[in-house]
Parts: sequence; structure tokens; C-alpha cells
Amino acid sequence: MIKITLKDGSVKEFEAGISVLDIAKGISEGLARNACCGIVNGKVCDLRTIISEDVELSICTFDSQEGKDAFRHTTSHILAYAVKRLFPEAKLAIGPSIANGFYYDFDKEVAFTSTDLEKLEDEMRKIIKENPQIEKFELPRAEALKLMENEPYKVELINDLGEDEVISFYKIGDFVDLCAGPHLLSVKSIKAIKLLRSAGAYWKGDEKNKMLSRIYGTAFTKKADLDAHIEALEEAKKRDHNKLGRELGIFTTDEKVGQGLPLLMPKGAKIFQTLQRWIEDEEAKRGYVLTKTPFMAKNDLFKASGHWDHYKDGMFVLGDEEKDAEVMALRPMTCPFQFTVYNAEQHSYRDLPIRYNETSTLFRKESSGEMHGLIRVRQFTLAEGHIVCTPEQIEDEFKGVIDLIDYVMSTLGIDKDISYRFSKWDPNNTEKYINDPEAWESTQNTMRTILDHLNINYVEAEGEAAFYGPKLDIQFRNVHGKEDTLFTVQIDFALAGRLGMSYIDKNGEKKIPFVIHRSSIGCYERTIAMLIEKYAGAFPLWISPLQVKILPISDKYNDYAEKVSKALKNKGVSVETDYRAEKIGYKIREARLERAPYIVVVGEKEAENNEVSVRSRKNGEEGAIALDTFVDRIVKEIENKEK
Amino acid sequence: MIKITLKDGSVKEFEAGISVLDIAKGISEGLARNACCGIVNGKVCDLRTIISEDVELSICTFDSQEGKDAFRHTTSHILAYAVKRLFPEAKLAIGPSIANGFYYDFDKEVAFTSTDLEKLEDEMRKIIKENPQIEKFELPRAEALKLMENEPYKVELINDLGEDEVISFYKIGDFVDLCAGPHLLSVKSIKAIKLLRSAGAYWKGDEKNKMLSRIYGTAFTKKADLDAHIEALEEAKKRDHNKLGRELGIFTTDEKVGQGLPLLMPKGAKIFQTLQRWIEDEEAKRGYVLTKTPFMAKNDLFKASGHWDHYKDGMFVLGDEEKDAEVMALRPMTCPFQFTVYNAEQHSYRDLPIRYNETSTLFRKESSGEMHGLIRVRQFTLAEGHIVCTPEQIEDEFKGVIDLIDYVMSTLGIDKDISYRFSKWDPNNTEKYINDPEAWESTQNTMRTILDHLNINYVEAEGEAAFYGPKLDIQFRNVHGKEDTLFTVQIDFALAGRLGMSYIDKNGEKKIPFVIHRSSIGCYERTIAMLIEKYAGAFPLWISPLQVKILPISDKYNDYAEKVSKALKNKGVSVETDYRAEKIGYKIREARLERAPYIVVVGEKEAENNEVSVRSRKNGEEGAIALDTFVDRIVKEIENKEK
Repeated sequence: MIKITLKDGSVKEFEAGISVLDIAKGISEGLARNACCGIVNGKVCDLRTIISEDVELSICTFDSQEGKDAFRHTTSHILAYAVKRLFPEAKLAIGPSIANGFYYDFDKEVAFTSTDLEKLEDEMRKIIKENPQIEKFELPRAEALKLMENEPYKVELINDLGEDEVISFYKIGDFVDLCAGPHLLSVKSIKAIKLLRSAGAYWKGDEKNKMLSRIYGTAFTKKADLDAHIEALEEAKKRDHNKLGRELGIFTTDEKVGQGLPLLMPKGAKIFQTLQRWIEDEEAKRGYVLTKTPFMAKNDLFKASGHWDHYKDGMFVLGDEEKDAEVMALRPMTCPFQFTVYNAEQHSYRDLPIRYNETSTLFRKESSGEMHGLIRVRQFTLAEGHIVCTPEQIEDEFKGVIDLIDYVMSTLGIDKDISYRFSKWDPNNTEKYINDPEAWESTQNTMRTILDHLNINYVEAEGEAAFYGPKLDIQFRNVHGKEDTLFTVQIDFALAGRLGMSYIDKNGEKKIPFVIHRSSIGCYERTIAMLIEKYAGAFPLWISPLQVKILPISDKYNDYAEKVSKALKNKGVSVETDYRAEKIGYKIREARLERAPYIVVVGEKEAENNEVSVRSRKNGEEGAIALDTFVDRIVKEIENKEK
Repeated sequence: MIKITLKDGSVKEFEAGISVLDIAKGISEGLARNACCGIVNGKVCDLRTIISEDVELSICTFDSQEGKDAFRHTTSHILAYAVKRLFPEAKLAIGPSIANGFYYDFDKEVAFTSTDLEKLEDEMRKIIKENPQIEKFELPRAEALKLMENEPYKVELINDLGEDEVISFYKIGDFVDLCAGPHLLSVKSIKAIKLLRSAGAYWKGDEKNKMLSRIYGTAFTKKADLDAHIEALEEAKKRDHNKLGRELGIFTTDEKVGQGLPLLMPKGAKIFQTLQRWIEDEEAKRGYVLTKTPFMAKNDLFKASGHWDHYKDGMFVLGDEEKDAEVMALRPMTCPFQFTVYNAEQHSYRDLPIRYNETSTLFRKESSGEMHGLIRVRQFTLAEGHIVCTPEQIEDEFKGVIDLIDYVMSTLGIDKDISYRFSKWDPNNTEKYINDPEAWESTQNTMRTILDHLNINYVEAEGEAAFYGPKLDIQFRNVHGKEDTLFTVQIDFALAGRLGMSYIDKNGEKKIPFVIHRSSIGCYERTIAMLIEKYAGAFPLWISPLQVKILPISDKYNDYAEKVSKALKNKGVSVETDYRAEKIGYKIREARLERAPYIVVVGEKEAENNEVSVRSRKNGEEGAIALDTFVDRIVKEIENKEK
């Protein structure tokens, strides 16, 4: 007999050699019917997995992410099966589940058309109706290579596998695919499928490789859920900052300027200015001091910091080491520059902590497939800061940063939309990291302790650290479900020493300080993208690039409209006046499309009484309000950053 | 008889063939004694020049710039004479007069030491005492080359002269030098000389050429004037932003970061922030809209704008056209980016004028010899704007820009320190300019008319225009007398068309707009340098990075000091508190060295009465003031930007 510890902590006994499915049945028939996969000792597995020792076990239905992943992974194989039936010449690459769906990449001469996708969907339904068996089997390397000899990408994948790794296959009907699983036991539960679109994608995501044809799709257990999801996708499309941001005149791009280099138009630049001033003022209140350092430097600086060794591929380099006397690079991070500012003066322990911040423009050489709207760009601006402190100050300073980020998130209204990731180094990838296992161990422990003291609920991610230390990343998902980092807090055990930073301690001894690298609002461009999607362009008043739209009923009241505009502008309110000779109803409709938080109509009565007729986005028609009262109210609402 | 029209408009008659000197004698013996050179029909000339027709003539004494130039030019020849006597192996390059002095470049194995300079000064005095004759003569090219055969740089200069140019020489004693003049008639009046320093300088200012040894010096007619000048130089050195700016913790530089890339430290970054917010707000009030555009673009954009053809040497280029699929460049100007923002929407005449501004970072590849502190750098930030308008709007918009610049200058307190330069194209240098003589003629006339309407007193400078149109440059001199451009207003007849900008006019026809390029505060870095030198670091309160320094008398009053600090910080005042256990007198002395506009002392009495004891930079000791009253006063003084 073996002991199975279930998710709720209860322990059940079963005979050794039982399958996960049978354990599920032992709990309840309903669970077994809905189960998609299991998690044994933290590792996802098939329901067909045999258990022969004491383990912790979760049974995952479609309601869990792991369940959804197994369900959609199986659907991606059905897609590949359908492709092989309709387009036998297509070669198979890979087909994983992703957030909200799956994709499969194929090497096929001609890209898939939307008609192809419809045909494939029908074929998939046909396959599901045929209810083929799903089987798993393993093969030694030579036999695996023989089996896949007509699939060059699979051959490459097999050759990529380490000596000791198991080479497993799944067979659905007569379709065999190299795959680590897990997969469903049967295709019966796949009740609702949808192929969403096709797109190009480089093999292994590398521009140097061949461009493959990727098909994106999703699958659900119920048609109603699929319909709801597709509706949500349509809604997401409308909110997509890359579409809505352009429609609202927030940003534009241009072929001649290049990819990943958006231009902020007046409305976007205004939002940027509002956020920047807010953050710089808030940080000043919290004891930060500003720096303003150059966006490029000789590679000598990056060699000293380690960026040249660990990050060069992501940097724009000016010049050629072989040819030029001086090679420069655009900066990918601000650290070595703020450290240089620190080093310009001698410091004692009494000066510490020093909290530097900078509204800092950075440059990263993103590959062309990666770039997207305002979210992934080649030039961006970060509220970047470095806190230089003694070891004893790390925890308090770290907490101070989290408090600042919490304030920023709640003021922006996004504190419910994020998750935490504790990003650690990868001891097997010493190229990417400063190779000091002891320092990593100790610094990661320090960070873990602080995170636990802060009661932060995080996931751990190996291989996501900075090259100089572990990070706490605050993650958000865009409307399409793609996750990106919005804020980051990092403890750096390495760069201060490398760049010769020091302070004189109480005993007159020279010590190397610790450094916390942090963002407080993250990349401004990315934050603006997120705000567009979050508010579908209807920004809170204080962020809104247009705060009050003034509509004179006819040109007789243009002078009064001008007076109202001046009264507001004098208080720093962003105002536009629509002087066009259009009907007032038409002007109101247009102002609403612009998402103006306040629309103010002025005509004879308003001009006579020194009033404005107010329509707010929040309360609708509010009627006539004295001009002074209205100005005071707007100013107060902006000051208070009301949502 | 010929008619000579003098500077005061009076006309005198003389016999044809009279020398300028004799005309001076004819006016007064005193004038003739003090005369250094003449100006005949706008061209400077020797006193020995013979006049044989009706002309306009000025006689220049040392009091005029032209007189000083001739005087110091002759002194530079005396220096060269002395060098040839003491270091005969040195080869002669060039030796012009400059603002406040002169220099001469020599090719000499070993650089001049300060002892060498002292010896040379003595030798020059000896030469002056010898009172050698000064003679001018001309030679045909072949003979000129023969005469200079041992002076390779002079040979090169002779070969550089055009076919028709006169090749003239001046002989002082037995020292002969190739020179266009003018020179003094005698060395007797050179009563006070000083060799200031030696430095390296490339032949013809080109890094690819040999580094020569330059000696800087100056000369006066009276010793007292020289002494006063040297004292002023000492004072200038103290004010030199490149020294004082570092001492005050405003900026630093670093070998590893590279030349021309200063790092603004917290105090410098704070000044920058204050100026930026002020300008952006002022421009918003004046109807400007912000943009925020990327700092790099594909060369396609710069090819379209013309920068690639006319400005490439000044740009940082990423990649190689021969090798790379994509070549990018850091931007040297913002125009093509703001034009792209304009082009993102369709415009009608009703939209115009559109006034774009941007706090815009630019990059220019300055040669290493040119870079200096915050004044000449490789990366800088400009309050850069472009006004897109119809032809009818140009004059009003131009005047609006001048009004803004006047406001900026008077608020900064520099309106008395500047001069105007009307910068025109050079029709003989069609490489550097868009070659459309008609457009140049017409646009320059437009600008001249506007400048005359504005009663602006300008000098004209050929060959100083932008490649796309004429400029009004507002020039200032740094403490060393070197002139640089602080603001610029340009009328552009070319780029809008090249970049496909258009608007629909009243008749529904597509038209190409005009563009005014302008800065309102110029390069922020340069402005900060100028403010440091202007105020010797004692900035007006509103610009000062440290506005109030709080000094608790002992640590018993730290809590009250903290309260005072908070009250001020809450109103956005920049405050520092000196908590050190030092004597109060010492703390006050240090705060004064920091140029704190307000020093506030808090002790028992102040804490009890909720007061502060104030010492202002303007009024000295002011005694005790209620805390609230003090806070209100500071806030008001900052708001009013009091000087």
C-alpha cells in the first residue's frame, strides 16, 4: 500500500501500481470524468501515470491552469493530425498550449488561408467524432530518429535532448508526435474548438532560422465558454492599445523611423508628462535624489560593469572594436551611470542610504518578431532607481520600495491585476550570470526572507534573474493574455564591487555597499499601454490628456468659451474647445468618443450667469454649475488623483 | 580730389592717393596717434592703405574691436618673431587675433613649457624695445613659395589661395610672415603683453592632421588694462562652469563614460527639472502641444529629410550600409520626427498653426578637441519646437517665438548678455545647403523683413544657416569670451515638402506648409552652464537646487528641524537639513559656501514659538519669522521666479 497526500491535505491509501485516473475514481466518479491531468510531487503528469510510492497528488480538471494546458495541448495535436490529413506535405515543428489557447508551427510552402483554417476546424471536429485512442510510448534514440525520419524539425528536437532524457511519443489514431505530454486520456471532452488566426514565426524564435506557419487556436469543454471567450477576445481587440492607442492619437509608428520606435503624439506625450512629474515628485518626497546621465558611454564602462560580457547581444553598439579607437554603446540600463555619480564623491556610512532616481531612457536591441506597440520597444523610459545602502539597511529599503510600488499601483488602479515573480539565477547558465554560487545563494535567501516578511505571494522562476542578482518582478497580462514585467526590484551583490563603489563604515574601514535596483512605475511606454487597455481609453481625470472639452453652442459664445478655457488652463487643466460650426448634439457625440472626462456646454444662459453646463463621464448630465465652483472641483479631483 | 565719408556721416575732401594714416592726421593728431587700422567701405585695412577714390572710412583705435584685432595680430607676429629667435627649428602655422587676445600655432618637437613662455615674453619685450620697422609687400606665387620654402605650413597656405588672390607678406625687423593684415604701423604702442598658456591644437582644426603647439596671449595699450584683464580672467576661472559646476556637485564626467557626456548629479538634475517644467508649462500656455519621439531612426528617415546628405558627418550611425540590412542613426535634430507626428493625421488650414514642442535629446558627433564641460557635448537636450503654418502666419508666429524667447531670457536674467546673428547660407557651398538660390533669396528676405519689423539689432553671417533655411541665432559669450548659440529661430522652406507634409487650404487644395524651427531655452546643458557662470553658483531662489538649508543648533532640535523640513517639502521646496554635531557657526559657513539662498537656524526659542531664524543671501540676517509666514513667503518667491 502507498500513501497519497491530496491537495486538501487528506491522506488516502491505495495499492502500489495504481494509475492517477484510478486514484481520481477512488475519490469520486465526477472528478475522474472531468480530470485532465495530475500533479505528482509538483510535476504535471498524465492521468495514465502509474504511482508506486508515497506521493503528494493533485487531480487537475479544466478549471485549473494545468488542466486547461493538458486539454489544449491535446487539441493542438488534433490540429496537427488534421493538417497532416489535409496538407500531408507540411512538416511538424512544435505545438504547445499557451495562455488561453495553443498554437502549432508547421513548415509549409504556402501560408494557411482563412479558408484553410475553416477546413482544418471541420477536420478536427471529424477527428474528435471518430474518437481515436490516445496512447503514449517511449523509444530509444535510434528508433525515435528512425520513426521521425521524415520530420526534420522533430529530428532536430530529438538531437537536442540530453543523453539521459526519455524520448516519448503520443499517438492519436494513426497520428504520432514526439511529445513529453501530458495529454488527455480521450478526445471526447473537447467539445468546443476554434482556430483563431495564422501567423509567421521563426523556428525556435530565432530570426536566423526559417519562418514557419503558426496556427493559433483555443478549445473549451463547453460551447458557451468558447463563445464567452471569443466575445472577450473581441472586447480585448477593441481595448488593444496597439489599435486604440493609435485611434485616440496617443502614438503612431512609421516605416521610415523603424520598428519598436513609437512616436508619442501630443496626447501620449501629455500622459507621459503627467506620470513623470507625479513619480518624480513622489520619489522626492520619499527621499530620492534625481540624476540625469548620458544615454551612451564608451564600452569601457560596460566592460567594468559586466554588461559587455553578459548583455552585449541586447545592446546597440556604435563602432567596431577591431577598427575604431573608440567604441561606444547605447545604454541598456542606468546602473553603471548612477554608480559613477555615486563615485564622484567620497561617502561615509552616515550618507547611506542614498536613493537615486532617474527618468531614464534605455535602448535594447529587440529582435523584430518581438516588438509590439508600446509594450516591447527598442527605446523606452524607466523610472529607474538605485539605492546604495549597508547590508543592515537592505530589508527596510526593500520594504520602502514595495510600499512605493504599492502606492503607484493603487493610484493607477492596477493593484488587483498583477502577480509576483521571484526571479532566480540558473546555475547551469553561467554565461548569463556572474558565476558566484555562494553570493547567489545568500542573496536569494535574503530576498526570500524579505518577501516572506512582506507576506508577498510569489511564484519562483529560475533563469529570470538579472546577471548581478535576484529580482522580484511584478507581472501583468495584456488584453491578449501575454505576461510582461511592469515593475522590478533587484538586490545586487556584484556591481558595486566591480565598479569600485565604497563607503567608510563606523570604524573608518572601507566597505562595499549593497545596491537595490528598482523601478517604481516601470517602463512609461508599457505603463501607458496598460492604462489604455485597462481603461479602454477612458482614463481617470488626472491622467487624461484631455480633461475638459468645451463646446460653445454657437460662435456667439466663443468669447465666453475662451474665458472658461483660460480659467481652467491657468490652473493647469488640459482643455480643448470645439469652435466648429456643428450642431451641439454632434459635438457632444464626438467629445464622448474622445472619452473626455468632462464635457462643458456654454450658451446664452451660461455666459450670462458665469456658469457651465456639465456632463461628466462618471455622472452623466449634471446641469449648470458656477464656473468658479467647477474649476475648484476639477483642480481638486486632479490633485486627489480620483479614479 | 576725393570725397571721404566718415563714420559720423561728415564728408571731407582729400587729394587722391592719400594714406589712411594721413586722413587720420587730417582729422586730428590724437586720432592718428591712437589709430590701429581703418575700415574702407566695410573692409578692414592697414593705416598704410592708399585711397584713390570716394569711400566711406572709419579710423579704428584700440577702443574698437577692429583696432584691438589689428593690435593683437601684430603682437602675435612679434610672438612668432620671438619664437624664431629662441627656437629657430619651430615651423610657423597661423597666428590670428581672437576675442580678448591672440594665439600662434607652431610645429615644434617639444611642447612649450611655462619657462619657455616667460622667456618668450622677455624676448617679445626686447623686440618691441628694438622698435623694428613694419613693412608690407606682395609677391607673385612662385616667388612667395620660394620665400617660404622652409615653412611647410605657409607653403600649404599659399597653395590653398585662389588663382586671383593677392599674396601679401608683413616684415617686422628681419621676420617675414605670410599675412593678409591689417597690422599696426609700428610696435611702439604695444605697452603690455602677456602669454597666458600653451595648448595642443590640430593643424586646420582637423583631428587627422598633426597636433601643433599653440601659445595663447593678449596685449593692451596700458599695463593697468592688462592687469584688470588678468584679474577678470582669474574671476572668470572661478566662475567657469567647468570648474564651479563640479565643485557645487552639479555635474561630473568620467573617463570610462567618455568625452562630451557629462553626468548631471542630483543638484544639476534638479535645476534641469525646474527649467524643463517651467518651459513645458509656459509653452503649453502659449498653445504648444508636446510630442515625445524616439532618439533614433532608420537612415531612411534622414535620407528623406536631407540630413543624410547634408549632415551625416555630424551623426552617430549604427550599422554599416554595405553590410547591414538596417542602418540606424541617433538623431541630430528633432524635425523629421515631429514632422512624422504631423503626417500621422490629415490637416486642414483650420488646424494651423500647430505648435509642437518637445524636451528633446539630440546627439552630435563633436570632434574631441571641441568638447567642453556642459557647453559643447555629444548628447544634449533642447526645448525643440516646430511651428507648422501657412505663409500668411509666418510673421506672427515668428514674433510669438521672439516674445517667448524674450520672456525666457528676462526671467533667467540674461537678456542683457546676448547678441543677435542673422545666419544666411553660403551660395558657394552647395554641398552644405539645399541648392535652391531662389528659395534662399526669398526666405532670407522674409526673415530680414520680420527682423526689421521687430527692431532687432543683428549682425549678418554668411555660411551659418541651417541646410534648409536661414536662422536668427541668439548668441552669448561664456566667461572666457567664447561665443556660442543659445537660442535659434529658423524659417524652413524645404523640409516640409521633402517629408510630404501638406494641408488642405480654404479652396480644398493640397498645399505644403512652412515650418519655423525654434528653441525656446536652447540646450538645457548649455543654459545650466551659462547660469552657473552668470550667478557664480548663487542661483536665483526658484532655480536653486538647494533652496533652504536648515541648521538645528543641537540634536535636541532635530525633531523641530524635521517639522520645518516637512512643512517646506510639502510645498515642493528643496530642503536639506544639516544634522551633524558641528558648531552652528561652522554649519552656517558651510551652507554659505553651498550658496544656499536661505539658511534657517532652529533652536530652543524657535521650536517653542514655532518660528525660524532666517538668514537670506539677499538680505543677510533677518531674525525670527513665524514658520507659516516663512513657508508662504518662500513659496511665493519661487512662484514669482524672483531674481
